[in-house]
Amino acid sequence: MVNDAQGTLVRVREEIQEELNSYLTLQREYLSGIGSELIPVCDALESFLLDGGKRLRPLFAYAGFLATDKIPSKEDIRAFTSLELLQACALIHDDLMDKSDTRRGKPAIHRHFENLHQSQAMHGLSEQFGEAAAVLLGDLALVWSDHMLHTSGISAQSLLSALSVHDEMRIELMAGQYLDVREAGEKYPNVDRSLRIARYKSGKYTIERPLHLGASIAIPDSNARKNLTHLLSSYGLPLGEAFQLRDDLLGIFGDPQTTGKPAGDDIREGKRTVLMAMTFDRARESAKAKLSELLGNENLSPSNIDTARTLISESGSVKVVEDLIDGLLSSALEAASSAEIGSSARQLLTLLATSAIHRSH
Amino acid sequence: MVNDAQGTLVRVREEIQEELNSYLTLQREYLSGIGSELIPVCDALESFLLDGGKRLRPLFAYAGFLATDKIPSKEDIRAFTSLELLQACALIHDDLMDKSDTRRGKPAIHRHFENLHQSQAMHGLSEQFGEAAAVLLGDLALVWSDHMLHTSGISAQSLLSALSVHDEMRIELMAGQYLDVREAGEKYPNVDRSLRIARYKSGKYTIERPLHLGASIAIPDSNARKNLTHLLSSYGLPLGEAFQLRDDLLGIFGDPQTTGKPAGDDIREGKRTVLMAMTFDRARESAKAKLSELLGNENLSPSNIDTARTLISESGSVKVVEDLIDGLLSSALEAASSAEIGSSARQLLTLLATSAIHRSH
Repeated sequence: MVNDAQGTLVRVREEIQEELNSYLTLQREYLSGIGSELIPVCDALESFLLDGGKRLRPLFAYAGFLATDKIPSKEDIRAFTSLELLQACALIHDDLMDKSDTRRGKPAIHRHFENLHQSQAMHGLSEQFGEAAAVLLGDLALVWSDHMLHTSGISAQSLLSALSVHDEMRIELMAGQYLDVREAGEKYPNVDRSLRIARYKSGKYTIERPLHLGASIAIPDSNARKNLTHLLSSYGLPLGEAFQLRDDLLGIFGDPQTTGKPAGDDIREGKRTVLMAMTFDRARESAKAKLSELLGNENLSPSNIDTARTLISESGSVKVVEDLIDGLLSSALEAASSAEIGSSARQLLTLLATSAIHRSH
Repeated sequence: MVNDAQGTLVRVREEIQEELNSYLTLQREYLSGIGSELIPVCDALESFLLDGGKRLRPLFAYAGFLATDKIPSKEDIRAFTSLELLQACALIHDDLMDKSDTRRGKPAIHRHFENLHQSQAMHGLSEQFGEAAAVLLGDLALVWSDHMLHTSGISAQSLLSALSVHDEMRIELMAGQYLDVREAGEKYPNVDRSLRIARYKSGKYTIERPLHLGASIAIPDSNARKNLTHLLSSYGLPLGEAFQLRDDLLGIFGDPQTTGKPAGDDIREGKRTVLMAMTFDRARESAKAKLSELLGNENLSPSNIDTARTLISESGSVKVVEDLIDGLLSSALEAASSAEIGSSARQLLTLLATSAIHRSH
């Protein structure tokens, strides 16, 4: 049975890739018609979108649609795929704000354009050019995501219904992003605040709203899908938080070969994650003092990173976070096993949940 | 007769202000429900949007609607007003990319949040916080503009028709912005390239597309408005270029009291405008060498700025640009006087054209 869901996952991922490919080909034609200077913009966004990415948000939208007992058409999958472009905007702007050097093992977009400026010996400051390019490529990806949704070919009724879920999702995303950036300005981490950020940035944006988007395209009447909407939230919110907690762990302990980010990246950035807040709640004063010194320090040696990892593990927070993930995953799986959800949707939701949580990147 | 158009202008500006006010009040309620940390975001965007702005894009959308011989309803005006939020995104991101300190006589958004970080003695780097906030506030304004359009209350048919104009406008805007940023990387300015940037950033984005948006809401069937669409382009494209050329002149010679930007701002930023490209085409070698030295120099004295202004004037480029503006304005007014456009629309288009060109800010 799980093999069916696995097959669906592989097939839908391929369809998402094809849709992205076709959309980007059209846009390359359009932009290069305006000016050949725009070709590096197309190159960079194609490489960013086609060479990696877990496609989680379109997959969850697919699962949300499937949960209505209907089968998504090619046009529906095109509409779901637009979420990858929104995610590209979020990641490009995120890396710029965090001043991260790498993404998926390659230079972040602002670094890529900084390098381009240097290698072409352009006039002016390379760093400023790289930053400006990242602002604009993120904006363009955001507008493209809208455009791809609007031109997906889904019915007018489905589109109008999707727009309201889509708008709310994007407002929540920006609010969550601001709270996250704002959190870095606090003197000390805080578990409740970090959990709220996880809820907006991941619970809602990564999982709950994509599920709702899929369901809203399948059943445009919001009253008719009310119960299902609640059920999808009961699955999506805990799973999204668990997803973010896994991200927190990977940001500290993940293998650069699989994460595509340098080892201990979150330590270097001093990221205020739930894991870090729990560590500060539990660690001894001397460990806290040492960690405060290491977190957010850009020039950490590999041995500094090992020290920070050890202090975090010794506080017991890793175990607490792993237990929390298990509990949240159970809640999500329980919601997915509701009798209201048909068997193929349930299988896909189960597979997506376990693979989102038991992952190495 | 012109008094009627003047009265319309005043009244519509007030309605735009009211619509912005109501929308921002609703969003403040929503965001402060997520977390009180978001209140400074609402404060900053309200101050940015309500304390200034010429409201040109909503006004051109109004005029485009009027050109169909229909009268815009409150819902239509709400839809037009969404363009102010898109423009807020463009300006916030523009100031961030240009590292401009001021906008409308107040600190630019990234500086405002940098100051907030300092005055509240927040943890981390103030400059990085300011930049991240500007990225996110711009993104939020972009998403809000979409949301305001979608929830304006216009008919589904009008909305679907508006979306395609709106998407094209936004893709053109981002393309134009990138070309502008890219142009700063060229060794020497170039008239043709700068004119193309003016076409995308101003001709299309500021005037032609807002006119089309208004017309598309009034007449959703694109075939039925085909002739009018062409006519509005014949008015909007030359006027938009003239508008940008006026901007170029104000960026060099404008009075800080009325522009809300420091004197000679474009000299300090080394902006590659059409005016500057024409100056380089005409100036003597010694003047070019001196100008190259001054342009893009952040630490210019008032006397340096005077020197640059004199060199630009002496090249004769100011006269050429003024003549070009006159010619473009005439073309726009000729298109507006077409028999296909009713008298109240014609009066408004005429008034908007002359006030967009004969302005001090």
